[in-house]
Amino acid sequence: MWKNRFRPYDILSGEDVEAIHGQAMTILQEIGIDFLHDRARELFGQAGMQVEDMRVRFDPAFVLEQVAKAPASFEYQARNPAHTVTIGGENLVTAPVYGPPFITDLERGRRGATIEDFNNFDKMAQAVEQIHCAGGTTVEPEDLPLGSRHLDMVYSHLRWTDKPIMGSVISSENARDTIEMASIVFGGRDKIERTPAILSLINVNSPLRYDDRMLGALLEYSDAGQPVIVTPFLMAGAMSPMGLAGTVAQQTAEALAGIALVQLIRPGTPSVYGSFLTNTDMQSGSPAFGTPESALGILASAQMARHYNLPFRGGGALTSSKAPDAQAAYESMMCMWPTVLGGVNFVLHAAGWLESALLASYEKFVIDVEALRMFEWMLKRGLPVDEEGLAMDALREVGPGGHFLGSEHTLRNYRTGFYRPWISSTENYDRWNRTGARTADVVATEKWKQLLADYKDPGIDPGVDEALKEFMTRRKPELDNV
Amino acid sequence: MWKNRFRPYDILSGEDVEAIHGQAMTILQEIGIDFLHDRARELFGQAGMQVEDMRVRFDPAFVLEQVAKAPASFEYQARNPAHTVTIGGENLVTAPVYGPPFITDLERGRRGATIEDFNNFDKMAQAVEQIHCAGGTTVEPEDLPLGSRHLDMVYSHLRWTDKPIMGSVISSENARDTIEMASIVFGGRDKIERTPAILSLINVNSPLRYDDRMLGALLEYSDAGQPVIVTPFLMAGAMSPMGLAGTVAQQTAEALAGIALVQLIRPGTPSVYGSFLTNTDMQSGSPAFGTPESALGILASAQMARHYNLPFRGGGALTSSKAPDAQAAYESMMCMWPTVLGGVNFVLHAAGWLESALLASYEKFVIDVEALRMFEWMLKRGLPVDEEGLAMDALREVGPGGHFLGSEHTLRNYRTGFYRPWISSTENYDRWNRTGARTADVVATEKWKQLLADYKDPGIDPGVDEALKEFMTRRKPELDNV
Repeated sequence: MWKNRFRPYDILSGEDVEAIHGQAMTILQEIGIDFLHDRARELFGQAGMQVEDMRVRFDPAFVLEQVAKAPASFEYQARNPAHTVTIGGENLVTAPVYGPPFITDLERGRRGATIEDFNNFDKMAQAVEQIHCAGGTTVEPEDLPLGSRHLDMVYSHLRWTDKPIMGSVISSENARDTIEMASIVFGGRDKIERTPAILSLINVNSPLRYDDRMLGALLEYSDAGQPVIVTPFLMAGAMSPMGLAGTVAQQTAEALAGIALVQLIRPGTPSVYGSFLTNTDMQSGSPAFGTPESALGILASAQMARHYNLPFRGGGALTSSKAPDAQAAYESMMCMWPTVLGGVNFVLHAAGWLESALLASYEKFVIDVEALRMFEWMLKRGLPVDEEGLAMDALREVGPGGHFLGSEHTLRNYRTGFYRPWISSTENYDRWNRTGARTADVVATEKWKQLLADYKDPGIDPGVDEALKEFMTRRKPELDNV
Repeated sequence: MWKNRFRPYDILSGEDVEAIHGQAMTILQEIGIDFLHDRARELFGQAGMQVEDMRVRFDPAFVLEQVAKAPASFEYQARNPAHTVTIGGENLVTAPVYGPPFITDLERGRRGATIEDFNNFDKMAQAVEQIHCAGGTTVEPEDLPLGSRHLDMVYSHLRWTDKPIMGSVISSENARDTIEMASIVFGGRDKIERTPAILSLINVNSPLRYDDRMLGALLEYSDAGQPVIVTPFLMAGAMSPMGLAGTVAQQTAEALAGIALVQLIRPGTPSVYGSFLTNTDMQSGSPAFGTPESALGILASAQMARHYNLPFRGGGALTSSKAPDAQAAYESMMCMWPTVLGGVNFVLHAAGWLESALLASYEKFVIDVEALRMFEWMLKRGLPVDEEGLAMDALREVGPGGHFLGSEHTLRNYRTGFYRPWISSTENYDRWNRTGARTADVVATEKWKQLLADYKDPGIDPGVDEALKEFMTRRKPELDNV
C-alpha cells in the first residue's frame, strides 16, 4: 500500500460533475436497471422502489442515502498483518492482472493457462513489494474442472501468498466457498466479518443489467460484510454510448445502484465504485485499451467516485498488444499516469496484462513492476524542498565548472538518492551490445525466472492447511459431479 | 501547434516555489556564473554587475528586471504561414530529436548518421502533422565536413520542410550563416527581425558556466532578435546536486542569467526557459532518462518557468534504451505525461530519440508519433460534457441489456468519435498471428518507409533555392579550408 501524495487531477469542472451526476440520477429514475435475481428485486421493492418485471426504477434520494452508508475507506486484512491494507483515502493498492484464459512467456509462447501458472503468479505477487494484493482470477487454470477450480485458486492465494486475496464471483456458491476457506484461515467467520478479508469484483452486465450469477455472489459477500467492487464493464460504443460523458453517467448509475443494494443487505459494508471503461475500435469492433478515451475515462471516473466519497477502483497497465513490446508499454503508461494522478485506490491489472485481458504474460508482469517501482519512488520521495533537497552546501562546494560526483552531498546520498532501475538498461551501447543486445522483454524473462527461483514460501500453519485441504476434498465431488 | 487545455499540474507548493526562487537568487548573487566570452562580461559589467575574471555575480533585482522584458509568448514563423506557431501561453509545439551522432533502423542497424538520414527526418517531420517544427541538429550528418555541415542542415530544413526551423549554435559564425540563409528565404533580415524565424538551443555548460562558442551564438541570435532557448544541461549528481530542488534552483539561476544577457543585448527578444534535466545512474555514472527524477523535474521546472511568466522548453520522449522496445516506450511515456500536464510550450525530442540522445531511430520516430497522436486527441477533444457527449438519446434508445453499436448516436459518431490508432494493433490474436505477429517496432518500419514514399515536397521558389545554393557554394570553401 502506498500513500499517494499527488493531488488528484480534476479533469471535470464542478458543473461537469453535476451534469454527469444529474444524468446518472435520470438514468436510475427514468430508465432503471434490470436485476436478474429475485432477492435483489424484492429488497428494492420493499424499500419502495418501482419494480416491473426485471426492471427496477429508483428514487435518486434513496440511492444517495444508501450510498452514503458505505465507508470512505476500510481495512482489508491479510493473513500476514504486515500486508493488511486500507482501501480508500490517499491509499493506492495494487493487484495483478485478472481474468485471462491464456498465458504467455517468451520461451513457451501463448497457451492455455494452468494452475501452475496461477501458482507462479501468486509466487511472483508474493515476491514483489509493488504488488499489494494477491488478486483473484489471475489467470483461468484451464487444466482444472470448471466446477471446482475456484477452490484451487482461493487455496493458491491463501497458501502461496500472505497478502490480501480476492474472492470467486462466479456464483453465490463459489462466494460461500471462498468465505468458508477464508474463515478457516482467519479463525472463523466472525473474524472476517469484523475486519474484511475478501475483496470481490462484481461486474455489471452493462448496459444497465446485473445478471443472476454476479448478483448471487454480491448478495453472499454483502451478507458476510465483505467488500464489493461494483464495476460496470464498459466498452464505449458497444456497452455504453460513444459519448464519454454519457458513458461515465451510465457507469455512475450502474455502480451506485449496485452499491445501494449492498447497503440494503448490510449497511456499512465496504463498497468500491469500480470502473472498467475503454472504447471500442469502431473499425474492427474490438476493444481498444490504453487509448486517449481510457485515460480520460480513468480521470473522470475517479473524480465521480470522489464526489460520492467512495473508494475507487480503476486503471491498471492495460493494452491491446499481443506482445510485451513498445505498444504494450506506451498503452499501459497511457493508463498508469491517470491511475496515479486520478488518485485510484485499488488498481487491478497493475501487472501482467496483455491482449485486451485475454492474455497474461510473465514478461509483461516484470515490465509493469518496473513502471510500478518508478511510480512508487515518485510517491514515496516526492520532490522535497528542504535543506537536503536544496543542497546549497553542494552548490557552494562545487561552484562553476566543477562536478558534483565527489561532493559531500553526493557522498551522503549516492546509494539511495536516485531511483535504481530493476530491468531498465542505462549501459552504453558497446557494453549492451557485447552482453547480448537484450531488449526489455528478454531481460524480463531472466527476472521472472529469478523471482520464482528466489521465492520465499510464507509458510502456513499445518492445521490450517489440513483444514483447507479437507474442505476442498469434501467440496470437489459435490461441485464436479453435477 | 496544439492548444493545451489541461490545467498545468503544480507539483510544488507556493512556498516551494519561493524557496527554489530564493536559492536561485542566492546562487546568482553569492556564487555567480562564469561567462567565457568577453562581450558577455563587458555587458554585465556595464550594467553594474560584479565581474571578476570569468565570474559574474548578479544583483537579483537586475536579473528579474531583465527577465521581465522577455515576452510571455511570441510568434515563430515558418515559410509556409500555415505552419507558423506561437511559443508560450497555452500552446504546445513539438520538434524531433536533436543531437544524435548515430542512427538506426531495424533493417540496417546502428551506424553513423548521414545527410541522407537528416533529409529523411526532415521529410518525416514534414509528413507528420504531430511534428510542428522541423528541428535543428536532428542527427549529426557525419559524412559531411564538420566546418560546413551546418549549411547543409539548415538547407535541408528550409528545402524539405516548410515548417519553422532551428538554427546552428556551434559558434557565432554558424549562427550568422543561419541568419543569412533564413533571410534569403524570408525576404530579408528585416522580415525575420520583425517576426522571428530561427529558434536556437543554447546549452549552458553546467554547472554555472557558459562557454564561448554557445555565447557567440547566443549573442548573434540576440542581436538579430531571434528567439533563444537557454537550457542548462543537467545530469543531477554530476552537473548539479543529487537534490532535485537544488538542481531546479541551479537550473533557474543558469537560465535566468542567460535570459538576462539576451535582454541586455536586445530587450524584448523572445527567450525561453529551457530544461534538460535528468539524473545520473550513480552505479554506472551514465545518464538515465525517463526516470522518476526526470518526470518530477519536468513538472517542477515548468512550474518555475510559469513563475517568471516565461515560455518553457522541456520534456520529450526520452529514454536510455538502445532499441525501440518496451523500455523505450515506458521511459518516454514517463516523460511525456509530465510534458503535457506540466504545460510545456516547446517539446524538443518529441520523436525519434533513443540511447540517451546518442541514437536517432526511424522506428522510434513512428512509435513516438503514435503517442503524440494520442495526446493530441486528448488535448483537442477533451471530455466534452454537452448534449452529444452525454448522449442521453442513446441511453434512452438502447436501455438495459441492449447494445449501442447500432444506435443513432453511434451512427452519427462512429467515424470520428474515437481515437483511431496509426500503428497500435487491436486485432485479435489469430488475425495478428496470421499476418506475421508483428510487434510495434516492425509495424513502425513499414510506417516510416510509407512516410518517405508518400512524402510531398512542399516545393521552393527556384530563385530562392538558387540563392541558397549560391550562398552555400561561396561559404563552403571558407569554412572547410581552415
